[in-house]
Amino acid sequence: MATVAIIGGGVIGSGWAARFLLNGWRVQFHDPAPAAEEALQRSLDKARRWVPEVYDGLPAEGPLEIMTRLEDAVAGADWIQESTPERLPVKQAVLAAIQGACSPSAVVASSTSGFMPSELQAESVRPEQIVVAHPYNPVYLLPIVECVPSVRTSAAIKARALAILEQIGMKPVAVGAEVPAHIGDRLMEALWREALWLIKDGVATTAQIDDIMTHGFGLRWAQKGLFETYRVAGGEAGMQHFLEQFGPCLSWPWTKLTDVPDLDDTLISRIVDQSDAQAAGRSVSALEAERDANLVALLKTLRAQDTAAGAFLNRLGKTTS
Amino acid sequence: MATVAIIGGGVIGSGWAARFLLNGWRVQFHDPAPAAEEALQRSLDKARRWVPEVYDGLPAEGPLEIMTRLEDAVAGADWIQESTPERLPVKQAVLAAIQGACSPSAVVASSTSGFMPSELQAESVRPEQIVVAHPYNPVYLLPIVECVPSVRTSAAIKARALAILEQIGMKPVAVGAEVPAHIGDRLMEALWREALWLIKDGVATTAQIDDIMTHGFGLRWAQKGLFETYRVAGGEAGMQHFLEQFGPCLSWPWTKLTDVPDLDDTLISRIVDQSDAQAAGRSVSALEAERDANLVALLKTLRAQDTAAGAFLNRLGKTTS
Repeated sequence: MATVAIIGGGVIGSGWAARFLLNGWRVQFHDPAPAAEEALQRSLDKARRWVPEVYDGLPAEGPLEIMTRLEDAVAGADWIQESTPERLPVKQAVLAAIQGACSPSAVVASSTSGFMPSELQAESVRPEQIVVAHPYNPVYLLPIVECVPSVRTSAAIKARALAILEQIGMKPVAVGAEVPAHIGDRLMEALWREALWLIKDGVATTAQIDDIMTHGFGLRWAQKGLFETYRVAGGEAGMQHFLEQFGPCLSWPWTKLTDVPDLDDTLISRIVDQSDAQAAGRSVSALEAERDANLVALLKTLRAQDTAAGAFLNRLGKTTS
Repeated sequence: MATVAIIGGGVIGSGWAARFLLNGWRVQFHDPAPAAEEALQRSLDKARRWVPEVYDGLPAEGPLEIMTRLEDAVAGADWIQESTPERLPVKQAVLAAIQGACSPSAVVASSTSGFMPSELQAESVRPEQIVVAHPYNPVYLLPIVECVPSVRTSAAIKARALAILEQIGMKPVAVGAEVPAHIGDRLMEALWREALWLIKDGVATTAQIDDIMTHGFGLRWAQKGLFETYRVAGGEAGMQHFLEQFGPCLSWPWTKLTDVPDLDDTLISRIVDQSDAQAAGRSVSALEAERDANLVALLKTLRAQDTAAGAFLNRLGKTTS
């Protein structure tokens, strides 16, 4: 049985723990925060509720051990997943502690959303062992993970990382070059800034933006992405023709690209008030349960489709329920 | 029976025609282009194939008349939908011809994705009659439509526009202030520019970006949008706490906001080649059929969910099949 060490809980670390456990791995969990175990339990409850609805034929759940000492958690682990707070000195110190106690052949992966692997490796005794494996919340349900090596990461670690991520039901994207925030968060951040402008200027409310996404382009992007959507929109004239038409738009002053909105108290209050109105009294855990139920339904639906959108999930060798 | 005049075909105008027809309206269609009727027929074929899979209890399809003269098409119409090329003088001239022949009480709506209603109204004899109704492709399936008045649009036209859009199965967003490109296209444009940078710099391929969306945040945005997703991510600490944490990120140099990528031949070729590889020989019409099948499945799935995501579609009073 393979063993993973989860270093740092929270939403992301606990999600990783749940995903590995449900895929039959032994999990050695370490987080010194007093509330960490409770958060882990909540993630596990959700994962046990939802993951079997998407996948038949899951292996027997692996054993879970809560470890007080980091050194005990990483001992004997094939994979170590670091999910500590997004501060470089913290991550570097934790990675040093991990590498002081783990096997040199283990994959040491960081969940960092912002830092480049070369930054994490800067002070490392064995940089070749470190890779970024950046997942998306909820980790137990969303398959995507960005796997980012630096030039110092060894080819063997890269190959093992990709293979193991597939083995636990994920779709790893092997990112070819390291940049701050990798790929997905940069895309989301660009849209997020524009959304802040629209709200600051009173053009849209949080509910209107969400409606336009959930009843419009979000439905496109859930199953065709950006480029394949545009390929279809371009029609038989082809991608080249479509892109040539798009060129002039890039110089139109549509988005406030040269400035960054100040997220001051006024803008924060406006967003909070609109978001409260939108939630209409539903608690965060109620919204979270809705999200998970919807994601399960979408994943099952896309799997069952006889299209490329269904191909990947079926390729994992687990049958649709 | 209510009557709509569709002025300008293409993907958008034909999609509007199909949506109105399948919701029982008489459609008077006018487009001088020789290939327009064939394109309309293709849209109709797709709509007839897919829309009844999402909705039971559709009314009998309305009659379709192809009109050689614009004046004949708009005569007696309750709604006129203009979907001509995205050039302001063209749209202003077509709107003038429409208003020269239509009823003063009809809604005159433009599908423009970029222009503000005040620009369309600048030369108009009856500006109060004009409103933007900007849909998303495929118009026959995606419910969202941005309904944008200017200060010169009458309250009566605004109210009728919203009521009629709901009646034909759409979810109109009443946009509160006019800005170029409204709301959704501004959000998509921001993400699109960032995607161009990632490809230009060799960080990602078109397939990787699409994978990150279709197996990651696209699945979130299809059913929870941007703000409700973040509300959940923020957890019980609340939206205020989440936003306060987000503040510093806005000054991080994650996205190349101060510059616009040059969509030159090199970048176009790179995208075209990657997109070809991604399509792996599937034709645009095959991709389009996949898209529609997936959208139908997603819409049916979200409708059937006992969550807010399902609430809207069910609110339309059509029962799930």
